[in-house]
Amino acid sequence: MQFPSPVAVKWIADFIGAKIIGNNIGYATGINEIHKVEPGDLVFVDHPKYYEKCINSNASFIIINKETAVPEEKALLLVNNPFDAYCKIVQHFRPFEPSSKMISSSATIGEGSFIYPNAFIGNHVSIGNNTIIYPNVTIMDHCIVGHNVVVQPGTVIGSSAFYYNTKKDREVWYKKMPDCGRVIIEDDVEIGAGCTIDRGVSHDTIIGKGTKMDNMIHIGHDTVIGKNCLIAAQVGIAGVVTLKDGVTLWGQVGVSKTLTIGANAVILAQSGVGGDLEGNKAYFGSPVQDARVKQKEMVWVKRIPELWDKVMGKKGGG
Amino acid sequence: MQFPSPVAVKWIADFIGAKIIGNNIGYATGINEIHKVEPGDLVFVDHPKYYEKCINSNASFIIINKETAVPEEKALLLVNNPFDAYCKIVQHFRPFEPSSKMISSSATIGEGSFIYPNAFIGNHVSIGNNTIIYPNVTIMDHCIVGHNVVVQPGTVIGSSAFYYNTKKDREVWYKKMPDCGRVIIEDDVEIGAGCTIDRGVSHDTIIGKGTKMDNMIHIGHDTVIGKNCLIAAQVGIAGVVTLKDGVTLWGQVGVSKTLTIGANAVILAQSGVGGDLEGNKAYFGSPVQDARVKQKEMVWVKRIPELWDKVMGKKGGG
Amino acid sequence: MQFPSPVAVKWIADFIGAKIIGNNIGYATGINEIHKVEPGDLVFVDHPKYYEKCINSNASFIIINKETAVPEEKALLLVNNPFDAYCKIVQHFRPFEPSSKMISSSATIGEGSFIYPNAFIGNHVSIGNNTIIYPNVTIMDHCIVGHNVVVQPGTVIGSSAFYYNTKKDREVWYKKMPDCGRVIIEDDVEIGAGCTIDRGVSHDTIIGKGTKMDNMIHIGHDTVIGKNCLIAAQVGIAGVVTLKDGVTLWGQVGVSKTLTIGANAVILAQSGVGGDLEGNKAYFGSPVQDARVKQKEMVWVKRIPELWDKVMGKKGGG
Repeated sequence: MQFPSPVAVKWIADFIGAKIIGNNIGYATGINEIHKVEPGDLVFVDHPKYYEKCINSNASFIIINKETAVPEEKALLLVNNPFDAYCKIVQHFRPFEPSSKMISSSATIGEGSFIYPNAFIGNHVSIGNNTIIYPNVTIMDHCIVGHNVVVQPGTVIGSSAFYYNTKKDREVWYKKMPDCGRVIIEDDVEIGAGCTIDRGVSHDTIIGKGTKMDNMIHIGHDTVIGKNCLIAAQVGIAGVVTLKDGVTLWGQVGVSKTLTIGANAVILAQSGVGGDLEGNKAYFGSPVQDARVKQKEMVWVKRIPELWDKVMGKKGGG
Repeated sequence: MQFPSPVAVKWIADFIGAKIIGNNIGYATGINEIHKVEPGDLVFVDHPKYYEKCINSNASFIIINKETAVPEEKALLLVNNPFDAYCKIVQHFRPFEPSSKMISSSATIGEGSFIYPNAFIGNHVSIGNNTIIYPNVTIMDHCIVGHNVVVQPGTVIGSSAFYYNTKKDREVWYKKMPDCGRVIIEDDVEIGAGCTIDRGVSHDTIIGKGTKMDNMIHIGHDTVIGKNCLIAAQVGIAGVVTLKDGVTLWGQVGVSKTLTIGANAVILAQSGVGGDLEGNKAYFGSPVQDARVKQKEMVWVKRIPELWDKVMGKKGGG
Repeated sequence: MQFPSPVAVKWIADFIGAKIIGNNIGYATGINEIHKVEPGDLVFVDHPKYYEKCINSNASFIIINKETAVPEEKALLLVNNPFDAYCKIVQHFRPFEPSSKMISSSATIGEGSFIYPNAFIGNHVSIGNNTIIYPNVTIMDHCIVGHNVVVQPGTVIGSSAFYYNTKKDREVWYKKMPDCGRVIIEDDVEIGAGCTIDRGVSHDTIIGKGTKMDNMIHIGHDTVIGKNCLIAAQVGIAGVVTLKDGVTLWGQVGVSKTLTIGANAVILAQSGVGGDLEGNKAYFGSPVQDARVKQKEMVWVKRIPELWDKVMGKKGGG
């Protein structure tokens, strides 16, 4: 999320009760995913394991619970509980803003677009031209939908991320990260029925121009799908994934978080992707492998009985 | 389901045209799942295979189609068609009660809670305080939602169970069991978008305090999820399953019916669980195995070609 | 799709600017799937690979981009771009007809049926007697729902097919085939919550009498499900599939396109079906195999270490 205008680090320190270490005259321009962070951004860190990664990232302002060295152009904001401080900032700039109307009066809808009955269009949503939103679709606050887009019935755009702060010594182990990102649906995208696309926690979830999605597809927070991808029914993609252009995922494929799939890769049905994959190749299996390697492996498994007979059979085994 | 007040066995016998064998002065207190049944409960059985299990269960009143011995504190209710008799009782105490309002006038909604437009709240539903129900959510009759609960858009709570009486010599093989159970969502639970949680057939489906569910999760009838469980997107859990506290299920896991997963077990993505699992361990595969055993197995499969070459190669094979 | 009345081939040629080769006095009766096509039907073909199949099919009228020989009772309609010509015809006979009412005034609803609030019933939909449509259900234009049907909350009937004309030298690679087929739900069918059933592209998607579907099931375009089938939660069936009567699919099964599963076949949970299967047998695995063969294979894999020790152990390997 970009802030509406740059925010003085002194104001932020005051607001969350932090001590500033380092650059105390700077201005923060936004909040971002640690994988996407840019100069000017504010992030938080509360676990020693991630201190260094955070301080050495592109972020300019770091909410932290330990006093430590920091490059002079950056600032640490020292507090006891960085998670709570972060939540306070997000909720200030992106407060819960309930809507009681089926189409919010702050939403804009382009020429030639049609919204069916029972669709919900939240606050500050922008919908382009010649776009069709079918019945029982939900588009939550701040999402952006392009031109010539089709959203089939029952689909949800902008649901909240499945992303929690975990501490198992509390009564409630998991506390939700408040989210301030959006979903951006580019032009010429078609989304099937019953899909769910989570908004970014702090960055945006993006579906690239010309991509086509079948029914019941789940897209996690801050995930970026390239142009002209083809995603078949019941695929699930976790958070902070990158699909390059022209990727094809067949039915019921699962993709784990924070990984990248290269351009024009094809993932065959029911595969499970757990790490980065090169483009321009076909993959299969759970866990996924090069499709030809996996196919050979399936043939090898069929040969075990022959091997067994050869080794054991003549010696009275089997 | 508990009856509104205890019901005389004589009234029940009269109502369904049954002959009473055994205790004819008792009062039935409710109807229950055979796996959950308690003294005072009424059950039915129509297949000789289950006669003994039913008669020896905690149930006090058994609708049955065969005269047989019964402990003296219990009663058999002898009819030709126990399934039809059972349906008649359920439909009497839990009749179809259509609602034409988006929020039923018999529903109660706590302080600080917000119901978005296009959400449907059925008859006798109870929603606690500070709970958010997003657009296009459906909560069917008699369900109970606690405090500080979030239900993301498009989710269905209290859909009917997938549970049928089967006879393949009828024109329609499968006849629905009428359901009289509820869904109970405890405090601090968060449920993602596009989930479906079936109500209990005769017991309740329960989501324990602090449990967090991602999008498109299916929970079957009479299933009980413990506290602080974490369930990732597109998981499916069948009916009458027990998840103990702190269980984690990763994406697209499937769990078969009437089994128990122990506390703090972790089931890796796309696994298929077909039987009980001990707690405090990680599992993987379809069918599921101890994750380390499964990982070793995957390595062994890779070694078949080496084995083949060794055994066959020198003898002209391969 | 049947045309409202037979349409002269000369009118069609005129409408799309085609040259007629062959029978120029015939009447086309409808548009159909190439797998389902009948005499009188109009089809299109734009790829040399499919010219012969199309010309030798039952179709009487073929929109094509190459002049070629044709049996005398048939006609070719020669155009530069058969896909665009086909789209023009479909959109003429099945124009986009938006509805702003929750229940279209052209829909008919039988006696004893109940439509819950927030359900959307499109134009020309027909619903039989004693059918229940739960909240937040969407039934799109032209679909037909029989008697004694139950559609649980959030389900979508008649969403658009995931079926595209592909050309990777355009900016947008995938262009949607306009669809003119319907969904037909026969009597005594029950459909769970959160399902999506796509309408046929040119034929109909059919759910046979007495079939029961659990939650979150996806059914592709032009697929025909037999009578008394049982489909568990989160199953996905692609387009143009045939399930014969009495087929059982357990949870999370995936079925690929244009194949047939024989009567009374049982597919175990999480299996992936990639080709035709004979009836009256059980299957398991991804890709699917005869269940007994697959079970034996799983046992053989467990024996690799023993084989390894035997072969390698005594020679210092392992």
